[in-house]
Amino acid sequence: MKCSVYIATSADGFIARNDGSVDWLMTAGKQSVDLADEADMGFNAFMASVDCMIMGRKCMEVIAAMNLTDEQWPYGDTHIVVLSNTLKESPSSLPKTLEMYSGDLNSLVTRLENEGFKHAYVDGGTTIQAFINLELINEMTITRAPVLLGAGIPLFGKTTKDITLEQSSVKGFANDFIQEFYQVAYN
Amino acid sequence: MKCSVYIATSADGFIARNDGSVDWLMTAGKQSVDLADEADMGFNAFMASVDCMIMGRKCMEVIAAMNLTDEQWPYGDTHIVVLSNTLKESPSSLPKTLEMYSGDLNSLVTRLENEGFKHAYVDGGTTIQAFINLELINEMTITRAPVLLGAGIPLFGKTTKDITLEQSSVKGFANDFIQEFYQVAYN
Repeated sequence: MKCSVYIATSADGFIARNDGSVDWLMTAGKQSVDLADEADMGFNAFMASVDCMIMGRKCMEVIAAMNLTDEQWPYGDTHIVVLSNTLKESPSSLPKTLEMYSGDLNSLVTRLENEGFKHAYVDGGTTIQAFINLELINEMTITRAPVLLGAGIPLFGKTTKDITLEQSSVKGFANDFIQEFYQVAYN
Repeated sequence: MKCSVYIATSADGFIARNDGSVDWLMTAGKQSVDLADEADMGFNAFMASVDCMIMGRKCMEVIAAMNLTDEQWPYGDTHIVVLSNTLKESPSSLPKTLEMYSGDLNSLVTRLENEGFKHAYVDGGTTIQAFINLELINEMTITRAPVLLGAGIPLFGKTTKDITLEQSSVKGFANDFIQEFYQVAYN
């Protein structure tokens, strides 16, 4: 099963402020620009390519706090696995497509694969870092907002070794966001 | 005087390993690719646009340790100011274009401006961070090597506030390095 990251960071690599807030993501860049058919910066095409999601508990709680209506829910019917050692049930404000999981990540990926899933969207800093160190992430799309925060929760963390990135490509948007794409090698 | 950053980092934002080494910079990316007239990834054009350099002591010591011959020296006759509170003289292995400076950075920039300098290349992590917090950096070119180091000396540090970046542009190279360009606003 292919595992991909699709995440936004500040130019200095943070996915949220230390208190978890992502206000800067909404205010960064040239607001007056109409991105037209690029307004989602590739998110819908990415979502259409995945058939399941794996996210950390904190990531889920950020989404739960948004109190999204069914119409606002960005993940459609995609099966979502939330990693948590403490929660046994998903918050009632979230759709029933959520499964809580506690346990080994390699086993989870193998199980999803056996269930027929082909492509997982892996989200949340802690989760992404764990997946990278298990050599489970295959591709990363990083969208950098044009702002330096100076502090916050970093996308990347300690690695057990140097991680080689390949097949890079980049795209600039008219609102001054930029997007980097990498395949991840572990040789 | 315009102050610019032109620096390489890992994809996770480090300019060197914790011991200062930049071995990863030489080995990252697709080595077999001939970049032809892009082999310097814009460095020579950037150097031609500056008329002075300001770097930290550690940055100078990394360069001094390379024991470059006159022919290998990449900075030509460019006047170089090295920031140090401890060193009064530059290492004898380095050209006499080096001036040691200890003191206020705003005063230094004003003095260089009064001496007729128009565009400074500001180098070294600590120095860049200090210049950003003094709102002295105008432009940044960041070349990201396709590797995650997991730890090291970060390019960016704490900021006194969010720093707005503008006029972004990006370029991908066939060796999988990517380059980001930003103008820095302080509003």
